[in-house]
Amino acid sequence: MNVEFINPFLESTIKVIETMAFTKVTPGKPSIKQGNKSWGCVSGIIGLASEQLTGNLILSFDKPSILGIVGGMLGEELSGITPDVVDAVGEITNMISGGAKATLSEKGHKFDMATPIMLVGKDVEITQLSKGPVITIPFRTDKGEFVVEVTLHPTK
Amino acid sequence: MNVEFINPFLESTIKVIETMAFTKVTPGKPSIKQGNKSWGCVSGIIGLASEQLTGNLILSFDKPSILGIVGGMLGEELSGITPDVVDAVGEITNMISGGAKATLSEKGHKFDMATPIMLVGKDVEITQLSKGPVITIPFRTDKGEFVVEVTLHPTK
Repeated sequence: MNVEFINPFLESTIKVIETMAFTKVTPGKPSIKQGNKSWGCVSGIIGLASEQLTGNLILSFDKPSILGIVGGMLGEELSGITPDVVDAVGEITNMISGGAKATLSEKGHKFDMATPIMLVGKDVEITQLSKGPVITIPFRTDKGEFVVEVTLHPTK
Repeated sequence: MNVEFINPFLESTIKVIETMAFTKVTPGKPSIKQGNKSWGCVSGIIGLASEQLTGNLILSFDKPSILGIVGGMLGEELSGITPDVVDAVGEITNMISGGAKATLSEKGHKFDMATPIMLVGKDVEITQLSKGPVITIPFRTDKGEFVVEVTLHPTK
């Protein structure tokens, strides 16, 4: 994967979560994903596609981090993964990929976005039939942790 | 969802599975998906995206059906969901969406395909943040059953 593709997703993640949830977000070191276990208890998936590029963005949240983020968005204390929290995961995934899409589009790397999918469940095995490595970036908020996975490669 | 979009996915599913796995495939009646539980034990997901359209194709197989289909493709008897079977789910998902993409493209409904994602796990909750209904089509092979879910809607 073009390393130039990583920063727009990292920066968009920080901007969206900090702006929406009024919480500080600290990124860890990006690495190449090993294994195929999902992470956390709720994930948002969005397909990225154009004639030039194909990939996915996957966000996976532990329970404290997503309850803190969505609680911050709504201005209330949340205790469980309700349908509203699940929908918020899809909206956040959509906004983060939209931010990265805008940045990369300016550099000539265009793609469109599929419909967000949300998964609830622990220890779900997620594999991608990717043409190259999946990059994973851990993030920490003051409530918990989440992980962003990006893969984006030439279509042909 | 434009009903014109359903048949290309249905026909591509039958063609790909019958051609690859040498097994007869019988479709059931399409309906609007209710609830948010996943179906079967292994699923393939592919995002569909263009400036005009956004959606997903999700295939979910019960264990007998996918072992029968991939066993038919490889010409051997399979007993478990191995990494090769999981990869085959991604390939099948890719081929079915590719067939529907070709048919719909001829009619002016263009979209590109994201990277296939495979999920292994039972009772995973899958929700889509879709702009319209998700259509679900059940299929039967001589070994088992699988379900195809399609959502494809105008991007704006």
